[in-house]
Amino acid sequence: MHRYDGGVDGRRDEPGRTIGGWQRVSRRVAYENPWVTVWHDDVTRPDGAPGIYGVVHFANVAVGVVAIDSEDRIALVEQDRYPFGRRSLEIPEGGSPHGEPPLEGARRELREETGLDAATWRELGRADLSNSVTDETAVIYLAMGLTAGPASPEGTEDLELSWLPFSEALAMTHDGRITDAISIIGIQWAAAERAGGGSR
Amino acid sequence: MHRYDGGVDGRRDEPGRTIGGWQRVSRRVAYENPWVTVWHDDVTRPDGAPGIYGVVHFANVAVGVVAIDSEDRIALVEQDRYPFGRRSLEIPEGGSPHGEPPLEGARRELREETGLDAATWRELGRADLSNSVTDETAVIYLAMGLTAGPASPEGTEDLELSWLPFSEALAMTHDGRITDAISIIGIQWAAAERAGGGSR
Repeated sequence: MHRYDGGVDGRRDEPGRTIGGWQRVSRRVAYENPWVTVWHDDVTRPDGAPGIYGVVHFANVAVGVVAIDSEDRIALVEQDRYPFGRRSLEIPEGGSPHGEPPLEGARRELREETGLDAATWRELGRADLSNSVTDETAVIYLAMGLTAGPASPEGTEDLELSWLPFSEALAMTHDGRITDAISIIGIQWAAAERAGGGSR
Repeated sequence: MHRYDGGVDGRRDEPGRTIGGWQRVSRRVAYENPWVTVWHDDVTRPDGAPGIYGVVHFANVAVGVVAIDSEDRIALVEQDRYPFGRRSLEIPEGGSPHGEPPLEGARRELREETGLDAATWRELGRADLSNSVTDETAVIYLAMGLTAGPASPEGTEDLELSWLPFSEALAMTHDGRITDAISIIGIQWAAAERAGGGSR
Protein backbone atom coordinates (compact mmCIF):
# COMPACT_ATOMS: atom_id res chain seq x y z
CA MET A 1 0.00 0.00 0.00
CA HIS A 2 1.23 3.45 -0.80
CA ARG A 3 1.08 5.51 2.34
CA TYR A 4 1.84 8.94 0.93
CA ASP A 5 -0.49 11.35 2.63
CA GLY A 6 1.15 14.54 1.48
CA GLY A 7 -0.70 17.39 -0.04
CA VAL A 8 0.22 20.96 -0.44
CA ASP A 9 0.24 23.14 2.61
CA GLY A 10 0.18 26.37 0.66
CA ARG A 11 -3.48 27.16 1.02
CA ARG A 12 -3.28 27.09 4.80
CA ASP A 13 -1.56 30.41 5.02
CA GLU A 14 -3.00 31.79 8.23
CA PRO A 15 -0.53 33.62 10.47
CA GLY A 16 0.19 31.80 13.70
CA ARG A 17 0.09 28.43 11.98
CA THR A 18 2.60 26.03 13.55
CA ILE A 19 4.52 23.38 11.63
CA GLY A 20 6.23 21.22 14.23
CA GLY A 21 8.67 23.54 15.94
CA TRP A 22 8.08 26.35 13.43
CA GLN A 23 5.56 29.15 13.81
CA ARG A 24 4.50 31.35 10.92
CA VAL A 25 4.26 34.99 11.99
CA SER A 26 3.37 36.53 8.64
CA ARG A 27 3.38 35.72 4.93
CA ARG A 28 3.66 37.92 1.86
CA VAL A 29 3.81 37.10 -1.85
CA ALA A 30 7.34 38.00 -2.99
CA TYR A 31 7.02 36.82 -6.61
CA GLU A 32 4.40 35.17 -8.76
CA ASN A 33 4.15 33.79 -12.28
CA PRO A 34 1.80 31.18 -13.80
CA TRP A 35 4.00 28.32 -12.51
CA VAL A 36 5.28 29.36 -9.10
CA THR A 37 4.44 31.67 -6.22
CA VAL A 38 7.24 32.65 -3.85
CA TRP A 39 6.15 33.35 -0.29
CA HIS A 40 8.36 35.22 2.14
CA ASP A 41 7.39 34.22 5.66
CA ASP A 42 8.49 35.73 8.94
CA VAL A 43 8.74 32.82 11.33
CA THR A 44 9.73 31.74 14.79
CA ARG A 45 12.26 28.92 14.39
CA PRO A 46 12.34 25.66 16.35
CA ASP A 47 14.94 27.17 18.72
CA GLY A 48 12.64 30.12 19.45
CA ALA A 49 14.67 32.66 17.49
CA PRO A 50 13.04 34.89 14.89
CA GLY A 51 13.78 33.93 11.30
CA ILE A 52 12.53 33.93 7.75
CA TYR A 53 11.47 31.21 5.33
CA GLY A 54 11.16 31.55 1.56
CA VAL A 55 8.77 28.97 0.13
CA VAL A 56 8.41 28.27 -3.59
CA HIS A 57 4.83 27.06 -4.12
CA PHE A 58 4.15 25.20 -7.36
CA ALA A 59 0.86 25.74 -9.19
CA ASN A 60 1.15 22.27 -10.72
CA VAL A 61 1.84 18.76 -9.55
CA ALA A 62 4.71 17.30 -11.58
CA VAL A 63 3.66 14.20 -13.49
CA GLY A 64 6.09 11.73 -15.06
CA VAL A 65 5.40 8.72 -17.26
CA VAL A 66 7.49 5.56 -17.63
CA ALA A 67 6.08 4.42 -20.99
CA ILE A 68 7.22 0.96 -22.09
CA ASP A 69 6.36 -0.62 -25.43
CA SER A 70 5.85 -4.26 -26.39
CA GLU A 71 9.55 -4.63 -27.22
CA ASP A 72 10.52 -3.54 -23.70
CA ARG A 73 11.72 -0.17 -24.87
CA ILE A 74 11.14 3.02 -22.88
CA ALA A 75 10.17 6.37 -24.41
CA LEU A 76 12.64 9.11 -23.45
CA VAL A 77 12.63 12.76 -24.46
CA GLU A 78 15.62 15.05 -24.64
CA GLN A 79 14.97 18.73 -24.09
CA ASP A 80 16.61 21.97 -23.05
CA ARG A 81 16.35 22.64 -19.34
CA TYR A 82 16.54 26.40 -19.06
CA PRO A 83 17.51 26.64 -15.37
CA PHE A 84 20.59 24.46 -16.02
CA GLY A 85 21.43 25.82 -19.44
CA ARG A 86 21.78 22.38 -20.99
CA ARG A 87 19.85 19.47 -22.46
CA SER A 88 18.52 16.60 -20.35
CA LEU A 89 17.34 13.10 -21.23
CA GLU A 90 14.15 12.30 -19.32
CA ILE A 91 10.91 10.42 -19.16
CA PRO A 92 7.97 12.46 -20.50
CA GLU A 93 7.01 14.95 -17.79
CA GLY A 94 4.80 17.93 -17.30
CA GLY A 95 2.57 19.82 -14.93
CA SER A 96 -0.92 18.98 -13.76
CA PRO A 97 -2.85 21.79 -12.07
CA HIS A 98 -3.91 21.13 -8.49
CA GLY A 99 -7.50 19.93 -8.72
CA GLU A 100 -7.00 17.94 -11.92
CA PRO A 101 -6.58 14.20 -11.33
CA PRO A 102 -2.83 13.76 -11.95
CA LEU A 103 -3.50 10.74 -14.15
CA GLU A 104 -5.32 13.02 -16.60
CA GLY A 105 -2.38 15.37 -16.59
CA ALA A 106 0.04 12.50 -17.15
CA ARG A 107 -2.00 11.21 -20.07
CA ARG A 108 -2.13 14.67 -21.63
CA GLU A 109 1.59 15.33 -21.19
CA LEU A 110 2.52 11.95 -22.66
CA ARG A 111 0.28 12.61 -25.65
CA GLU A 112 1.57 16.16 -26.18
CA GLU A 113 5.24 15.28 -25.90
CA THR A 114 5.29 11.94 -27.71
CA GLY A 115 1.92 11.39 -29.40
CA LEU A 116 1.55 8.21 -27.35
CA ASP A 117 -1.50 6.98 -25.50
CA ALA A 118 -1.56 3.93 -23.24
CA ALA A 119 -4.13 1.24 -22.49
CA THR A 120 -2.94 0.57 -18.94
CA TRP A 121 -1.84 3.08 -16.35
CA ARG A 122 -0.46 2.32 -12.92
CA GLU A 123 0.71 4.81 -10.30
CA LEU A 124 4.24 3.92 -9.24
CA GLY A 125 4.49 6.45 -6.44
CA ARG A 126 4.86 10.04 -5.31
CA ALA A 127 7.92 12.03 -4.29
CA ASP A 128 8.71 15.43 -2.77
CA LEU A 129 11.34 16.81 -5.12
CA SER A 130 12.97 19.64 -3.19
CA ASN A 131 11.40 19.87 0.23
CA SER A 132 13.72 22.36 1.89
CA VAL A 133 12.37 25.21 -0.24
CA THR A 134 9.54 24.00 -2.50
CA ASP A 135 6.26 22.11 -2.12
CA GLU A 136 6.62 20.44 -5.53
CA THR A 137 5.33 16.88 -5.60
CA ALA A 138 5.79 14.40 -8.44
CA VAL A 139 3.33 11.64 -9.27
CA ILE A 140 4.88 8.98 -11.49
CA TYR A 141 3.05 6.43 -13.63
CA LEU A 142 3.87 3.26 -15.52
CA ALA A 143 2.11 3.29 -18.90
CA MET A 144 1.87 0.21 -21.12
CA GLY A 145 -0.17 -0.95 -24.07
CA LEU A 146 1.07 2.01 -26.09
CA THR A 147 -0.49 3.35 -29.27
CA ALA A 148 1.10 6.04 -31.42
CA GLY A 149 -0.50 9.27 -32.61
CA PRO A 150 0.68 12.77 -33.54
CA ALA A 151 2.65 14.72 -30.95
CA SER A 152 1.69 18.34 -30.20
CA PRO A 153 4.39 19.90 -28.04
CA GLU A 154 3.83 23.32 -26.50
CA GLY A 155 5.71 26.31 -27.84
CA THR A 156 8.00 26.10 -24.84
CA GLU A 157 9.09 22.57 -25.72
CA ASP A 158 11.80 21.50 -28.13
CA LEU A 159 11.73 17.75 -27.68
CA GLU A 160 13.56 14.85 -29.25
CA LEU A 161 11.92 11.46 -28.71
CA SER A 162 14.00 8.30 -28.54
CA TRP A 163 13.37 4.67 -27.65
CA LEU A 164 15.88 2.75 -25.55
CA PRO A 165 15.93 -0.74 -24.10
CA PHE A 166 14.55 -0.43 -20.57
CA SER A 167 17.70 -2.05 -19.16
CA GLU A 168 19.86 0.63 -20.76
CA ALA A 169 17.72 3.44 -19.36
CA LEU A 170 18.04 1.84 -15.93
CA ALA A 171 21.82 1.77 -16.30
CA MET A 172 21.67 5.46 -17.28
CA THR A 173 20.02 6.31 -13.94
CA HIS A 174 23.07 4.82 -12.25
CA ASP A 175 25.94 6.17 -14.34
CA GLY A 176 25.00 9.83 -14.61
CA ARG A 177 23.62 9.95 -18.13
CA ILE A 178 20.14 10.55 -16.70
CA THR A 179 20.28 13.17 -13.93
CA ASP A 180 16.66 14.32 -13.68
CA ALA A 181 15.24 13.24 -10.31
CA ILE A 182 11.76 12.31 -11.56
CA SER A 183 13.30 10.13 -14.27
CA ILE A 184 15.75 8.42 -11.90
CA ILE A 185 13.02 7.66 -9.38
CA GLY A 186 10.43 6.59 -11.96
CA ILE A 187 12.73 4.25 -13.85
CA GLN A 188 14.03 2.70 -10.62
CA TRP A 189 10.48 2.24 -9.29
CA ALA A 190 9.47 0.62 -12.57
CA ALA A 191 12.49 -1.69 -12.39
CA ALA A 192 11.55 -2.78 -8.87
CA GLU A 193 7.95 -3.32 -9.90
CA ARG A 194 9.03 -5.46 -12.85
CA ALA A 195 11.45 -7.44 -10.67
CA GLY A 196 8.59 -8.16 -8.29
CA GLY A 197 10.50 -6.16 -5.68
CA GLY A 198 9.19 -3.21 -3.79
CA SER A 199 6.08 -3.72 -1.75
CA ARG A 200 3.32 -2.41 -3.95
CA MET B 1 32.17 6.27 -14.72
CA HIS B 2 29.86 9.02 -13.65
CA ARG B 3 29.27 11.29 -16.60
CA TYR B 4 27.45 14.11 -14.86
CA ASP B 5 28.80 17.31 -16.35
CA GLY B 6 26.25 19.64 -14.87
CA GLY B 7 27.08 22.81 -13.10
CA VAL B 8 25.04 25.83 -12.33
CA ASP B 9 24.20 28.16 -15.14
CA GLY B 10 23.27 30.99 -12.83
CA ARG B 11 26.46 32.97 -13.09
CA ARG B 12 26.23 33.20 -16.86
CA ASP B 13 23.50 35.78 -16.77
CA GLU B 14 24.38 37.87 -19.78
CA PRO B 15 21.42 39.01 -21.89
CA GLY B 16 21.26 37.39 -25.28
CA ARG B 17 22.51 34.07 -23.93
CA THR B 18 20.90 31.16 -25.75
CA ILE B 19 19.97 27.85 -24.16
CA GLY B 20 19.04 25.49 -26.95
CA GLY B 21 15.96 27.04 -28.47
CA TRP B 22 15.62 29.64 -25.71
CA GLN B 23 17.07 33.13 -25.76
CA ARG B 24 17.39 35.26 -22.66
CA VAL B 25 16.39 38.86 -23.35
CA SER B 26 16.79 40.28 -19.85
CA ARG B 27 17.11 39.13 -16.25
CA ARG B 28 16.17 40.79 -12.97
CA VAL B 29 16.35 39.62 -9.37
CA ALA B 30 12.75 39.19 -8.21
CA TYR B 31 13.51 37.82 -4.73
CA GLU B 32 16.56 36.92 -2.70
CA ASN B 33 17.31 35.37 0.67
CA PRO B 34 20.40 33.53 1.96
CA TRP B 35 19.26 30.26 0.36
CA VAL B 36 17.64 31.16 -2.96
CA THR B 37 17.63 33.89 -5.57
CA VAL B 38 14.62 34.12 -7.87
CA TRP B 39 15.35 35.48 -11.33
CA HIS B 40 12.61 36.75 -13.61
CA ASP B 41 13.80 36.48 -17.19
CA ASP B 42 12.22 37.87 -20.33
CA VAL B 43 12.90 35.28 -23.01
CA THR B 44 12.27 34.28 -26.57
CA ARG B 45 10.82 30.78 -26.50
CA PRO B 46 11.80 27.88 -28.76
CA ASP B 47 8.80 28.68 -31.02
CA GLY B 48 9.99 32.28 -31.39
CA ALA B 49 7.25 33.79 -29.25
CA PRO B 50 8.11 36.18 -26.40
CA GLY B 51 7.77 34.67 -22.94
CA ILE B 52 9.01 34.72 -19.37
CA TYR B 53 10.93 32.26 -17.23
CA GLY B 54 11.18 32.32 -13.44
CA VAL B 55 14.32 30.53 -12.22
CA VAL B 56 14.97 29.63 -8.60
CA HIS B 57 18.75 29.62 -8.12
CA PHE B 58 20.04 27.78 -5.08
CA ALA B 59 23.01 29.21 -3.14
CA ASN B 60 23.91 25.70 -1.98
CA VAL B 61 24.39 22.29 -3.49
CA ALA B 62 22.21 19.77 -1.65
CA VAL B 63 24.25 17.02 -0.04
CA GLY B 64 22.80 13.74 1.22
CA VAL B 65 24.46 10.92 3.14
CA VAL B 66 23.54 7.23 3.16
CA ALA B 67 25.31 6.29 6.40
CA ILE B 68 25.40 2.56 7.13
CA ASP B 69 26.81 1.03 10.32
CA SER B 70 28.51 -2.32 10.93
CA GLU B 71 25.15 -3.97 11.66
CA ASP B 72 23.82 -2.91 8.25
CA ARG B 73 21.57 -0.26 9.70
CA ILE B 74 21.05 3.13 8.07
CA ALA B 75 20.87 6.44 9.93
CA LEU B 76 17.63 8.30 9.19
CA VAL B 77 16.45 11.63 10.58
CA GLU B 78 12.87 12.77 10.93
CA GLN B 79 12.26 16.49 10.75
CA ASP B 80 9.61 19.09 10.01
CA ARG B 81 9.57 20.17 6.38
CA TYR B 82 8.16 23.66 6.49
CA PRO B 83 7.08 23.93 2.81
CA PHE B 84 4.92 20.82 3.20
CA GLY B 85 3.72 21.46 6.72
CA ARG B 86 4.58 17.97 7.92
CA ARG B 87 7.39 15.72 9.12
CA SER B 88 9.53 13.70 6.77
CA LEU B 89 11.84 10.70 7.32
CA GLU B 90 15.08 11.20 5.38
CA ILE B 91 18.76 10.51 5.09
CA PRO B 92 20.87 13.26 6.67
CA GLU B 93 20.92 16.20 4.24
CA GLY B 94 22.01 19.77 4.09
CA GLY B 95 23.44 22.52 1.97
CA SER B 96 27.01 23.00 0.78
CA PRO B 97 27.87 26.44 -0.61
CA HIS B 98 29.03 26.52 -4.23
CA GLY B 99 32.82 26.54 -4.05
CA GLU B 100 33.05 24.20 -1.05
CA PRO B 101 33.88 20.60 -2.00
CA PRO B 102 30.49 18.90 -1.50
CA LEU B 103 32.15 16.06 0.40
CA GLU B 104 33.16 18.57 3.08
CA GLY B 105 29.59 19.80 3.24
CA ALA B 106 28.28 16.25 3.49
CA ARG B 107 30.69 15.42 6.29
CA ARG B 108 29.69 18.56 8.19
CA GLU B 109 25.95 18.01 7.75
CA LEU B 110 26.23 14.37 8.86
CA ARG B 111 28.17 15.43 11.94
CA GLU B 112 25.80 18.29 12.80
CA GLU B 113 22.61 16.29 12.36
CA THR B 114 23.69 12.96 13.84
CA GLY B 115 27.08 13.38 15.55
CA LEU B 116 28.46 10.71 13.20
CA ASP B 117 31.70 10.75 11.28
CA ALA B 118 32.72 8.14 8.73
CA ALA B 119 36.03 6.53 7.76
CA THR B 120 35.07 5.86 4.14
CA TRP B 121 33.15 8.10 1.78
CA ARG B 122 32.05 7.29 -1.73
CA GLU B 123 30.08 9.49 -4.10
CA LEU B 124 27.02 7.59 -5.32
CA GLY B 125 25.89 10.18 -7.85
CA ARG B 126 24.35 13.54 -8.63
CA ALA B 127 20.78 14.50 -9.49
CA ASP B 128 18.90 17.57 -10.69
CA LEU B 129 16.01 17.77 -8.25
CA SER B 130 13.49 20.08 -9.90
CA ASN B 131 14.86 21.15 -13.28
CA SER B 132 11.78 22.88 -14.72
CA VAL B 133 12.17 25.80 -12.30
CA THR B 134 15.28 25.36 -10.11
CA ASP B 135 18.98 24.71 -10.62
CA GLU B 136 19.26 22.68 -7.41
CA THR B 137 21.66 19.76 -7.67
CA ALA B 138 22.09 17.01 -5.09
CA VAL B 139 25.33 15.13 -4.49
CA ILE B 140 24.78 11.92 -2.57
CA TYR B 141 27.39 9.91 -0.66
CA LEU B 142 27.69 6.47 0.90
CA ALA B 143 29.39 6.75 4.30
CA MET B 144 30.67 3.73 6.17
CA GLY B 145 33.02 3.01 9.07
CA LEU B 146 30.92 5.20 11.33
CA THR B 147 32.02 6.66 14.66
CA ALA B 148 29.67 8.44 17.04
CA GLY B 149 30.12 11.90 18.56
CA PRO B 150 27.87 14.70 19.81
CA ALA B 151 25.33 16.14 17.37
CA SER B 152 25.03 19.91 17.02
CA PRO B 153 21.93 20.70 14.98
CA GLU B 154 21.30 24.24 13.79
CA GLY B 155 18.57 26.30 15.40
CA THR B 156 16.43 25.64 12.37
CA GLU B 157 16.57 21.88 12.87
CA ASP B 158 14.41 19.74 15.11
CA LEU B 159 15.70 16.29 14.28
CA GLU B 160 14.96 12.80 15.51
CA LEU B 161 17.63 10.21 14.67
CA SER B 162 16.69 6.57 14.17
CA TRP B 163 18.48 3.45 12.94
CA LEU B 164 16.70 1.05 10.62
CA PRO B 165 17.78 -2.12 8.83
CA PHE B 166 18.92 -1.01 5.38
CA SER B 167 16.46 -3.42 3.75
CA GLU B 168 13.57 -1.79 5.59
CA ALA B 169 14.63 1.69 4.50
CA LEU B 170 14.81 0.42 0.92
CA ALA B 171 11.26 -0.93 1.22
CA MET B 172 10.19 2.48 2.55
CA THR B 173 11.42 4.16 -0.65
CA HIS B 174 9.00 1.91 -2.54
CA ASP B 175 5.88 2.05 -0.38
CA GLY B 176 5.55 5.77 0.26
CA ARG B 177 6.89 5.99 3.81
CA ILE B 178 9.95 7.83 2.50
CA THR B 179 8.90 10.53 0.00
CA ASP B 180 11.95 12.82 -0.07
CA ALA B 181 13.58 12.60 -3.51
CA ILE B 182 17.20 12.77 -2.29
CA SER B 183 16.50 9.93 0.16
CA ILE B 184 14.72 7.76 -2.41
CA ILE B 185 17.51 8.20 -4.95
CA GLY B 186 20.35 7.79 -2.44
CA ILE B 187 18.97 4.64 -0.83
CA GLN B 188 18.22 3.07 -4.22
CA TRP B 189 21.69 3.97 -5.53
CA ALA B 190 23.23 2.44 -2.39
CA ALA B 191 21.14 -0.71 -2.86
CA ALA B 192 22.32 -1.07 -6.47
CA GLU B 193 25.92 -0.50 -5.42
CA ARG B 194 25.66 -3.16 -2.73
CA ALA B 195 23.99 -5.57 -5.14
CA GLY B 196 26.91 -5.09 -7.54
CA GLY B 197 24.43 -3.53 -9.95
CA GLY B 198 24.73 -0.12 -11.48
CA SER B 199 27.83 0.65 -13.44
CA ARG B 200 29.98 2.57 -11.02
